[in-house]
Amino acid sequence: MKTQVAIIGAGPSGLLLGQLLHRRGIDNVILERRSGEYVLSRIRAGVLEQGMVDLLREAGVDRRMDEEGIPHDGFELAFDNRRVRVDLEGLTGGKTVMVYGQTEVTRDLMEAREAVGATTIYEAENVQPHDLDTDHPYLTFEKDGEICRLDCDYVAGCDGYHGVARRSIPEDRIKTFERVYPFGWLGILSDTPPVSDELIYANHERGFALCSMRSKTRSRYYVQVPEDEKVEDWSDERFWDELKARLPDDVAGKLVTGPSIEKSIAPLRSFVAEPMQYGRLFLVGDAAHIVPPTGAKGLNLAASDVNTLYRLMVKVYQEGRTDLIARYSEVCLRRVWKAERFSWWMTTNLHKFSDGEDFERRIQQAELDYYTSSQAGLTTIAENYVGLPYESLD
Amino acid sequence: MKTQVAIIGAGPSGLLLGQLLHRRGIDNVILERRSGEYVLSRIRAGVLEQGMVDLLREAGVDRRMDEEGIPHDGFELAFDNRRVRVDLEGLTGGKTVMVYGQTEVTRDLMEAREAVGATTIYEAENVQPHDLDTDHPYLTFEKDGEICRLDCDYVAGCDGYHGVARRSIPEDRIKTFERVYPFGWLGILSDTPPVSDELIYANHERGFALCSMRSKTRSRYYVQVPEDEKVEDWSDERFWDELKARLPDDVAGKLVTGPSIEKSIAPLRSFVAEPMQYGRLFLVGDAAHIVPPTGAKGLNLAASDVNTLYRLMVKVYQEGRTDLIARYSEVCLRRVWKAERFSWWMTTNLHKFSDGEDFERRIQQAELDYYTSSQAGLTTIAENYVGLPYESLD
Repeated sequence: MKTQVAIIGAGPSGLLLGQLLHRRGIDNVILERRSGEYVLSRIRAGVLEQGMVDLLREAGVDRRMDEEGIPHDGFELAFDNRRVRVDLEGLTGGKTVMVYGQTEVTRDLMEAREAVGATTIYEAENVQPHDLDTDHPYLTFEKDGEICRLDCDYVAGCDGYHGVARRSIPEDRIKTFERVYPFGWLGILSDTPPVSDELIYANHERGFALCSMRSKTRSRYYVQVPEDEKVEDWSDERFWDELKARLPDDVAGKLVTGPSIEKSIAPLRSFVAEPMQYGRLFLVGDAAHIVPPTGAKGLNLAASDVNTLYRLMVKVYQEGRTDLIARYSEVCLRRVWKAERFSWWMTTNLHKFSDGEDFERRIQQAELDYYTSSQAGLTTIAENYVGLPYESLD
Repeated sequence: MKTQVAIIGAGPSGLLLGQLLHRRGIDNVILERRSGEYVLSRIRAGVLEQGMVDLLREAGVDRRMDEEGIPHDGFELAFDNRRVRVDLEGLTGGKTVMVYGQTEVTRDLMEAREAVGATTIYEAENVQPHDLDTDHPYLTFEKDGEICRLDCDYVAGCDGYHGVARRSIPEDRIKTFERVYPFGWLGILSDTPPVSDELIYANHERGFALCSMRSKTRSRYYVQVPEDEKVEDWSDERFWDELKARLPDDVAGKLVTGPSIEKSIAPLRSFVAEPMQYGRLFLVGDAAHIVPPTGAKGLNLAASDVNTLYRLMVKVYQEGRTDLIARYSEVCLRRVWKAERFSWWMTTNLHKFSDGEDFERRIQQAELDYYTSSQAGLTTIAENYVGLPYESLD
């Protein structure tokens, strides 16, 4: 089997890249270790930056997003017994975000790919890249017990943090940067109306809380928990009680509770691998970088890598600009580190790091006080939240 | 001896407060442990915020500042082999800072105080506050071997970090917050023309450096050194070589070197005591808080405490508004913590904290990259550097 771009991973990054390339006449095949149903069962992010929304439109995958997605032109920061609204639209000159679940994005992309007849091989086991540092890389994998080979010009590693793509780069050719936070997020999904039309990020002495939603009838709430916490120890009742305790009174009073339909704990981590390329392999999204979820940058950052690789491939195949290939990592990383910075900043300033009152806690309060009382400070939050501009290749 | 406001300390805070009170008819006496000459020999800050300049004008101490001070409408950040100008005037709607040495401010205030005949008792040893939590506080001190007593309505503690004022507050009535940075600033004063018309704050892999000045012919330069460094180990030549190595090439090439007329190492510390008052004692400036010098906030923050206490005393004596007294600490601390935040931010992002490349170093680079590439980011730096608005008492 032969293709131009071999894509490892059929999550939203791989599917979006595949769709964009296909529409520009660049042949691609996606190999996915899991089944399509498994991919769709993963509950992930739900806030799309303007740039990702535009990219989905360019991919022709916007019909259901426009019908069911909820544009948000602001969100709230709650701290010190008060709420401050971050007016995204007003502070950024009209930019907004779109609340539309990652699962829905993935489903739309899968359907679009099926409609155009592009190849996705699900349950492709033991995917292995070969000869990445030559002009003729290829992948091997097992499908239904048979060993298969996929020859290609380039490989896109869209297979996440635990995937094979990054691990295929020789250790002495890659450097990693990491920060593990001493807590996790306990998240609950419930078919209850969201407590507020907008997201609320709450800094509270009991710990961080987030009120989010997937639709007008489905809510997603989170509370910060210690890193060694077990989800079995959290009944729905305990979760709702803890959430209420961390929200401003007027918000807590309006909260509609109900049975959880999903409940899980996710660790918080910052991670970056440099460079994001090796020979003819390009790392995309979580394969190269992880952000803590505070600020909703993970999926969006993957989309900006997709944007860069997509435009790069178009220049390679349509203009013969192979000179640009060497710039992929550098172009991606500049934006990656800014998004890492913002996610780290939001995480650092909204979570509880220690008991009691110390210098760091006071600085945290001063950060929130300053940034929410200054127009310039609020603008830095807003312009990062809606997404900084995509970096140009040239 | 009796007065309305007893001021401990004849540094710039005590002298400025005394002069402002005197002009509004509020009697005050300053007790200073050292001689006037000693006070004037201390080499300190040299950048005055607009608010402090305005306050010096209100005190009638602006003639020489206007003649010899140098208004600065911008400064530069150097990092990653490039320089970015922070256009203070353009970003803040016309605000600037004034380069005029603390020593000169102190001299002007001393002369003004002498001219109006207000009392300053120099070499007042063993100053001790008494009965601070009653309506009749008083100070005792020794002058020329004799024990003296100064009765007063209120006590202003302008006697710095090591002074007696803060230590007079019972331990269970005060809480302190502290951060000690693992490095110091080695500073040199030289009668050489400044390398640039504007200040240059440099982040370099060898460590932080600062190009500053006192006048058009007197320069003040600093380099970050390990905390245990000894000034004897730094010849002038070694200092100049190290400074040049940390500056962008075009700046280093223009540097005019010469013999140092002062050379010293200062530690970097963040410190805040809460509350800033106890009974009829008010802490002002360094007595209550210390900032690392990055960002030039120390003297300016003392001036904003002076402003608050001055306006409070005027309301007390002219309008009988004793109800406002309880708000002094709260009003001061809101601005104090914001200045602590900015000084901590500048320090954290401009200094070298560890060898090698790690997550924190990359975040530092991303902070500098983001804040200098965003108009909103640059505005946050500019508006803090020129000084956030003074908080109102009411």
